[in-house]
Amino acid sequence: MAKMKKQPRPKAITPKGFRDYFGADVTERAEMLSKIAGVYHRYGFDALESSGVETVEALGKFLPDVDRPNEGVFAWQEMDDKGKGGDWLALRYDLTAPLARVYAQHRNDLPTPYRRYAMGPVWRNEKPGPGRFRQFYQCDADTVGSASMAADAEICAMLADTLEAVGIPRGDYIVRVNNRKVLNGVLEVVSGWQDPTPLDQSFQGRRQKAVWDEVKRDAVLRTIDKFDKVGEEGVRALLTEGRLDASGAYIDGVGLTHAQAKPVLAFLTSKSDTSAETLANLRAAVGDSAMGIEGVDELEQIAELLAAQGYGPDRIVIDPSVVRGLGYYTGPVFEAELTFEILDEKGRPRQFGSVAGGGRYDDLVARFTGQQVPAVGVSIGVDRLLAALREKGRTGGVAQGPVVVTVMDRARMADYQAMVGELRQAGIRAEVYLGNPKNFGNQMKYADRRGSPIAIIAGSDEFEAGMVQIKDLILGAKIAENATLEEWKERPSQFEVPRDQLVETVRDMLTGQGG
Amino acid sequence: MAKMKKQPRPKAITPKGFRDYFGADVTERAEMLSKIAGVYHRYGFDALESSGVETVEALGKFLPDVDRPNEGVFAWQEMDDKGKGGDWLALRYDLTAPLARVYAQHRNDLPTPYRRYAMGPVWRNEKPGPGRFRQFYQCDADTVGSASMAADAEICAMLADTLEAVGIPRGDYIVRVNNRKVLNGVLEVVSGWQDPTPLDQSFQGRRQKAVWDEVKRDAVLRTIDKFDKVGEEGVRALLTEGRLDASGAYIDGVGLTHAQAKPVLAFLTSKSDTSAETLANLRAAVGDSAMGIEGVDELEQIAELLAAQGYGPDRIVIDPSVVRGLGYYTGPVFEAELTFEILDEKGRPRQFGSVAGGGRYDDLVARFTGQQVPAVGVSIGVDRLLAALREKGRTGGVAQGPVVVTVMDRARMADYQAMVGELRQAGIRAEVYLGNPKNFGNQMKYADRRGSPIAIIAGSDEFEAGMVQIKDLILGAKIAENATLEEWKERPSQFEVPRDQLVETVRDMLTGQGG
Repeated sequence: MAKMKKQPRPKAITPKGFRDYFGADVTERAEMLSKIAGVYHRYGFDALESSGVETVEALGKFLPDVDRPNEGVFAWQEMDDKGKGGDWLALRYDLTAPLARVYAQHRNDLPTPYRRYAMGPVWRNEKPGPGRFRQFYQCDADTVGSASMAADAEICAMLADTLEAVGIPRGDYIVRVNNRKVLNGVLEVVSGWQDPTPLDQSFQGRRQKAVWDEVKRDAVLRTIDKFDKVGEEGVRALLTEGRLDASGAYIDGVGLTHAQAKPVLAFLTSKSDTSAETLANLRAAVGDSAMGIEGVDELEQIAELLAAQGYGPDRIVIDPSVVRGLGYYTGPVFEAELTFEILDEKGRPRQFGSVAGGGRYDDLVARFTGQQVPAVGVSIGVDRLLAALREKGRTGGVAQGPVVVTVMDRARMADYQAMVGELRQAGIRAEVYLGNPKNFGNQMKYADRRGSPIAIIAGSDEFEAGMVQIKDLILGAKIAENATLEEWKERPSQFEVPRDQLVETVRDMLTGQGG
Repeated sequence: MAKMKKQPRPKAITPKGFRDYFGADVTERAEMLSKIAGVYHRYGFDALESSGVETVEALGKFLPDVDRPNEGVFAWQEMDDKGKGGDWLALRYDLTAPLARVYAQHRNDLPTPYRRYAMGPVWRNEKPGPGRFRQFYQCDADTVGSASMAADAEICAMLADTLEAVGIPRGDYIVRVNNRKVLNGVLEVVSGWQDPTPLDQSFQGRRQKAVWDEVKRDAVLRTIDKFDKVGEEGVRALLTEGRLDASGAYIDGVGLTHAQAKPVLAFLTSKSDTSAETLANLRAAVGDSAMGIEGVDELEQIAELLAAQGYGPDRIVIDPSVVRGLGYYTGPVFEAELTFEILDEKGRPRQFGSVAGGGRYDDLVARFTGQQVPAVGVSIGVDRLLAALREKGRTGGVAQGPVVVTVMDRARMADYQAMVGELRQAGIRAEVYLGNPKNFGNQMKYADRRGSPIAIIAGSDEFEAGMVQIKDLILGAKIAENATLEEWKERPSQFEVPRDQLVETVRDMLTGQGG
């Protein structure tokens, strides 16, 4: 017989960086994802659900996010029956890496192009911070196997439709579209040196490219990032001979000639009211760079395809300022921003900002098969979008507390159950109080904590008379807050009705409370 | 500069025991879970979503399932910034262990009793087998903090409602209810020895109990399990002096007297047409065992509460044969079985069987807090129930392939996009073919693979004439199969309509195809 050794009690806590979601936090998200899935489905995208666990080999061990290169994955090694180590497994860190694996694995059975959507949790083994969790939802749609700009345009249109479907009104969001190739083209013009084609792998070509890459290119990109802060003239000075900053310190310039700086400035100031004008400005900025011209052509095709479907600049615009963090985008990139204002932590108004983004990437499947497969996709920031819907008051309704049938007489439980059964049959959310019924005050506290709109009360007097007491808890709360108001005095918060009018009365009251 | 080292390509495979779900496999499950959530919500249960990752400490390292004690969890150790080992983390193996942790952690903020439902993936580090995966869905509802049998009755009623809500018609399922205490009471009577109360921890009391536990009790339980095979007389013989089996071998008996065997046989034959009769039989079987009487009383309360809500024996019955595998159940246990027949692998008809089960457990929260918290819950086998719905033809409809707009003229992509945009605006699932349009045959193969009901075709002739071709792919397939049927000859599978009647025509055709 085993001895009863006293074990120390385990701590009841979530691991660091993980959290629990309760009630409306769960149902509102589910409702939003279901609306999004509806739009994706209508666009011909098929659901895909891969498992949370992948081999580290298939996943790649680290995130492709260049801004945070130290982010890792949760990984562990399989053990076989004899305790010998096998494959390393890991939790997926996004939904794109598994898509690449799925497409490579099942490519002979999947249609080409393959449009798929996926929604579910992903895990990141990074330092948790305020509002930053190590498990969170992603919601992606991707088209794999199409090089057509129609695929990119379609995803931008779908993104706009999706935002409206979940409750962001037109005018409160904008989808911005850019193309990586345009800025790369501008940089080619600046360097006066053309990117080698993929075939030009001569020593000289690689070396020339590398020098430019490592020195000037970075400096130019860093300067471009300051455009919002220092403006056109500031950037011009920083790209060339340098300037005095606000504190009087002299900031060295990158050392370009003014002629070299010109296409960069043309690029930065290219955004115009119409896509046609923006495109014309970009075309001027990329000069005769083949890559730049290709980028502008692609943007032009996207703009045309969207215009043909009626997506005007009130919904989708060409905007050269879009920069997506992920290093793997190779062509068009896009971002959805919510343009309405909220108050930040310090009470200052600011735009809500980005809730979704994506772009074209061509290399992910090649990791597995050696064959480049063109792909384009979008990812919605589920928590950000849900927060936005809450700001706009576009969630809720579902989450109302249940009608609570209180227990005055323990021996009458079957009668209380019958009441609650009738209410539920009528589609009304309802429950019997299942705790210890001794203290009636506890029952009312429970109803309060549950956010109950109505409590039902019946003791021996009521059963004898064939009646039930109905207490309007919402009206009751209002009366408690505003005891002087005449109109509420006329509407008592508790009254009696015949037992057989219970369901009807509760239904009418709920309709009235909701209105 | 990094050298371009040639990396071996990763294998594009899921880890052993994991799988991908495509299209309807995902959406049908989501739809079913959404209906279940609707019922749970109406019953006053609140959603809870805990994360997939827990500390091993909080989770307990191994499964409570006594039938498969070697099943493990996927676990790994946290590393801090300096590479020092921290907490061990693990993927949850069910939704009950996290509930206990959540309730212990948040008990001051949660209502008591706390009704919650949860649905999501769980992971088991066990040997995968045919149809057995290491990640699968669970869908649970539990009431924590209520000792009332009304909580158990409510969950049985909810289970019946749930099965009907997802599409199992009344008559095709039965919820069976038993109570662990009844069989334990019978065993007490058999041994002629009463279980010590929790306070009687004297050496003698413990020793006496242990001897019985380890020898006779197991033998009696094993014999009970043979009831279906050997029947009443067979069990009587095996409990007492033994018997000859079909092969002529002599099987030793447990060695009980016939008087001792009597209550066991009374228990095994107690099931009757009415709950009242079954309960009377059980009451006779448990004799004066306090535990047994308590068990029968509890079943009687459950039966009364269910009758008050109109749940008769066509939906929920008292059935002493229910045995749930999990060792942690302490009182009522229940199981939902689907009673319609399916064909097994060998083509023989058999009942579909169990799709859900649960019961009362009182010890899970005490692990954390030291305080016993009574709880009762149910878990639905998501994959089993979904398989049952497919058997009954109760899924689908949502999963129809998209209308495919083919591309005859690459330069007309904007026009094709406009068509597809109009179809989508009208709520019709539609897409443009986004692959290389050169080979028209490939486009039709694509439409076929997508399960498309209709293809739209327009080349320069059609654009000039302001027409589009519409091809009915479902009718086309039928004609291909049954080329002789006259009625289909009269309905051509491809025809032309004016461009502005595209949406209307497609909508009418889809309505017709569906009917």
